[in-house]
Amino acid sequence: MRIGAIEAGGTKFVCGIGNEEGVIEDRVSFPTENPESTMANVIAYFEGKGVEAIGIGTFGPIDIDKASPTYGHVTTTPKPGWSGFDFLGTMKRNFDVPFGWDTDVNAAAFGEATWGAAKGLDSCVYYTVGTGIGVGVYSEGKLVHGLVHPEGGHVLTRRHADDDYEGFCPYHGDCLEGMAAGPALEKRWKVKGSELAVDHPAWALEAYYLGQAVSNVILMLSPKKVILGGGVMHQLQLFPMIREEVRKQLNGYVSAKEIVSGLDSFIVPPGLGDNAGLSGSLALGLDALKGK
Amino acid sequence: MRIGAIEAGGTKFVCGIGNEEGVIEDRVSFPTENPESTMANVIAYFEGKGVEAIGIGTFGPIDIDKASPTYGHVTTTPKPGWSGFDFLGTMKRNFDVPFGWDTDVNAAAFGEATWGAAKGLDSCVYYTVGTGIGVGVYSEGKLVHGLVHPEGGHVLTRRHADDDYEGFCPYHGDCLEGMAAGPALEKRWKVKGSELAVDHPAWALEAYYLGQAVSNVILMLSPKKVILGGGVMHQLQLFPMIREEVRKQLNGYVSAKEIVSGLDSFIVPPGLGDNAGLSGSLALGLDALKGK
Repeated sequence: MRIGAIEAGGTKFVCGIGNEEGVIEDRVSFPTENPESTMANVIAYFEGKGVEAIGIGTFGPIDIDKASPTYGHVTTTPKPGWSGFDFLGTMKRNFDVPFGWDTDVNAAAFGEATWGAAKGLDSCVYYTVGTGIGVGVYSEGKLVHGLVHPEGGHVLTRRHADDDYEGFCPYHGDCLEGMAAGPALEKRWKVKGSELAVDHPAWALEAYYLGQAVSNVILMLSPKKVILGGGVMHQLQLFPMIREEVRKQLNGYVSAKEIVSGLDSFIVPPGLGDNAGLSGSLALGLDALKGK
Repeated sequence: MRIGAIEAGGTKFVCGIGNEEGVIEDRVSFPTENPESTMANVIAYFEGKGVEAIGIGTFGPIDIDKASPTYGHVTTTPKPGWSGFDFLGTMKRNFDVPFGWDTDVNAAAFGEATWGAAKGLDSCVYYTVGTGIGVGVYSEGKLVHGLVHPEGGHVLTRRHADDDYEGFCPYHGDCLEGMAAGPALEKRWKVKGSELAVDHPAWALEAYYLGQAVSNVILMLSPKKVILGGGVMHQLQLFPMIREEVRKQLNGYVSAKEIVSGLDSFIVPPGLGDNAGLSGSLALGLDALKGK
């Protein structure tokens, strides 16, 4: 089986071909430019490759309401040329195969539930912590869309008492993304996060905010796994610190053994590593083929 | 069709019989005492009534994992005698019918999605704001259980700058429940909430905390309707104030028309009024019969 996968990110596109086992057999990547030149690259890559379906996990916001006249479009984005672009329609006009279509983070959550850290579970939450913070939600065996799709990177935070950084989110200032995405580290400490020592106080503060978000999602959704990916989470020292924040913040209230004594295997990095996004898009394509 | 319904609350039980249209044809209520005497009342009520199924929406925490050996039990509760009580098993030993079993708040969310304010929608979130705060989550056409079940009343809040009340939650102090459930009003203002004038500053503070919770759930889950019930929400002046908080807090980020211009019909009281719980249990019973 040959399934196409597109991980459409704000700075780069990754296209690949994989099989029903989740094995990626080929991949290319190129920078995200305007829709015309970017899509020309995408179409050229898949042409003649004989894929049976294509899954797309993309930056957003996007329209994922199948009943909507603009289903498959990018909605409002500051990215030049992409607002209102009919991404899915453009692909469909070029390839007569079933398509999976979802946000990049929902794709990653689905990939993790199919082949990764949440394999075999019917729920997980996937955070990507990088230049922004995105959240994919898989619950009761389904990706959560709802009215639009989750935008859990923008939840309000409780500020740390010692933190006077105002946050960089243009909408909310000190929401989770504004306080804990990569640019917040750089703006707060005046160096890139990747240049901060592993014992720098920046990481305790980072763990405070991410731990708060994870605690709240455990209370709100009761997921069976919380997966933290993205560039900032390459700082693996954050994992034990985040687990400790969650333990402190929940304070024994949620009495499941996975929380009380199993946080080491409950709050984890992506099982698919940095392939979570592309593998997730592959899983969306496979799912579209099954549902045909 | 005759379906039984049990709304098992911490202070009272309501039992009723209804039909597939959601019409409650008979009901009784009695105080919640120890499990033996309370269940004797429940069993006596349904005996000989010829119900085809029974739905139970109950206070928790409870075990709703069908694969668990303690499925159907109340888990840990300070309520004397109820910790570890096999609620569902006790009912099954007395009535050989299909049973629905979920939390009181999930039942209410399901009732609202079946016959109430979210009728015809595949997602909604139901908050009850009373002596505590509970949250039921219905998403992509399914009630959310996950690892345990949502306990969204205990999410952390961002404190209001002018509020020095410490919060009453024994686990978290100033979580949502600790700051915004009925007892917080009474402890903060030294009179019962129901005795405060509709223009008392208490309500602006209450709307601040509830609006924050609703904003966060919109970002995290993107529900198609947010329903606010429970005793505190009888203060209908709260609704426009909460909508205004949500509008301010989201600050245009979620561009769906339901949010941008439709909050009056998006954040609403229960369509079933104070029947949301019992009707929801009825809907659970009906669902169990269908799934038999």
